[in-house]
Amino acid sequence: MDKIYDMIIIGGGPGGLTCGIYAKRAEMDVVMLEKGFPGGQVMTCDEIDNYPTQKGILGMDLATKFYEHATALGLDVEYEEVVGLEKTDKIFKINTLNKCFYSKTVVISTGASPRKINIPGEAEFFGKGVSYCATCDGAFYKGKDVAVIGGGDTAVGDAIYLSKICNKVHLIHRRDELRATKSLQTKAFNNDKIEIHWSSVPKSIVGESFVDRLTIENLKTKEEEVIPINGVFVLVGTIPNTEFVGDFVQTNKGYIVVDKNMETNVPGVFGVGDCVDKSFRQIITAAADGALACFSAEKYV
Amino acid sequence: MDKIYDMIIIGGGPGGLTCGIYAKRAEMDVVMLEKGFPGGQVMTCDEIDNYPTQKGILGMDLATKFYEHATALGLDVEYEEVVGLEKTDKIFKINTLNKCFYSKTVVISTGASPRKINIPGEAEFFGKGVSYCATCDGAFYKGKDVAVIGGGDTAVGDAIYLSKICNKVHLIHRRDELRATKSLQTKAFNNDKIEIHWSSVPKSIVGESFVDRLTIENLKTKEEEVIPINGVFVLVGTIPNTEFVGDFVQTNKGYIVVDKNMETNVPGVFGVGDCVDKSFRQIITAAADGALACFSAEKYV
Repeated sequence: MDKIYDMIIIGGGPGGLTCGIYAKRAEMDVVMLEKGFPGGQVMTCDEIDNYPTQKGILGMDLATKFYEHATALGLDVEYEEVVGLEKTDKIFKINTLNKCFYSKTVVISTGASPRKINIPGEAEFFGKGVSYCATCDGAFYKGKDVAVIGGGDTAVGDAIYLSKICNKVHLIHRRDELRATKSLQTKAFNNDKIEIHWSSVPKSIVGESFVDRLTIENLKTKEEEVIPINGVFVLVGTIPNTEFVGDFVQTNKGYIVVDKNMETNVPGVFGVGDCVDKSFRQIITAAADGALACFSAEKYV
Repeated sequence: MDKIYDMIIIGGGPGGLTCGIYAKRAEMDVVMLEKGFPGGQVMTCDEIDNYPTQKGILGMDLATKFYEHATALGLDVEYEEVVGLEKTDKIFKINTLNKCFYSKTVVISTGASPRKINIPGEAEFFGKGVSYCATCDGAFYKGKDVAVIGGGDTAVGDAIYLSKICNKVHLIHRRDELRATKSLQTKAFNNDKIEIHWSSVPKSIVGESFVDRLTIENLKTKEEEVIPINGVFVLVGTIPNTEFVGDFVQTNKGYIVVDKNMETNVPGVFGVGDCVDKSFRQIITAAADGALACFSAEKYV
């Protein structure tokens, strides 16, 4: 007979790791399945200033602290990629690329991934001038000119970050105002190295072996402009990492629909963090989701 | 003309301080009103193991880290006790014992306080053997026998804490099973110094200048028992610190009713943390509440 866990947590970001912390403290028989490295998107952030008690911490350090807290309490992490979910009677079967796991409850905390802009050159030059993570790749563009696509917290925050490394940062935003937090806007507006191209969208990324220019279009004037740059950072939001879920639970544009106890429409299956259908996605809210999902799952078991 | 803030946060626990962190990062004009000391109930906790990234931290240290994070970002704290709320047009008037404040939004994060058991001797011997905080007062009972009333996480956790200091700990619980997390139950059951009195309620606390015995009644046998002890720790839950709210916003048994954006039935007034009507009250969830309330308040302003 295969082992049946109390809980399987799919995905090791702040939400999943907090769920693991609570599950171990509740003495549940739990395992985390993570396909890459624990920490989630936090891992790819530069400085993080909004996780309370950890002011100005590097993303990698914060991710490590989450991971170490959970593993110090005894959380087991298996490096497996989940490809599908099934239910038989009251037990869930979690299929990974290599094997199967069985559990009484499932917590889906797989987070979200960068959204692509689908323009010519984006795929061709990925890793050769096209990046989705300024803090991962910014250092490669020291003294060069780069473009950032987007207008939210990540785009504007990363434009500021890149301005410390690069010669110039072109911020390309489709609207005539930024969505980012005001403190970030103020910093961007006061930054001589950042030039904002309002009401503009990227049209194509061009180069030879490496990116050397970006064409943008002004949505109001319909004029095109070619900007000489060596890097394009695409930071236009995220999509949930929930392909493996299929229609096993209810989703909205791929985001998992949960009730106020973090439970999906399938009793015993919970959703946590950035992959959940909600309006506000932060490290602290993902962590709280994880705690609440464990509380709900413990009652269910 | 009196100053009108963007946001006034009433109460400086983890929820209010996280709201302050987010408000300062959003460059809101915000002030926190706190009647005692910031940190909330965290301040009176011994070791805390479930705030992710801060494993095994002392309550006082964790409270300080929250406070220092918020004030490092520039959050102002005024030491004022709020006694009432009013609304005129779109501006809220917050009355304290000493003065008035005006604001476009109000965040209520006043937490909760220990619930009393209302038996003879409880009030008379408060501070002379009766306590609501083991980690505050436990050290006074070194080598003595004490009783803990309750069966939840706090009661059982504090019984374990007191067992390290005291000669013996009587845990008095009205039911025949504990509500506490299993890991705490296991520790309590395996602790020679803890004796659990199941299905029992306290009837009276007796002493001369100081408590010297507790009478309990077994609810099943109706028999009374007199236990010689020097301290009684009453840990039977909490009540919300919302007297000043009156009927200004909708409440349920004093707990503030909020929607999924943390907004009350009065637009512009938000509730956060332990004073809110919900089933799961943790440091991490209070903090997430605070972040979300700020996000909602920023949109409202």
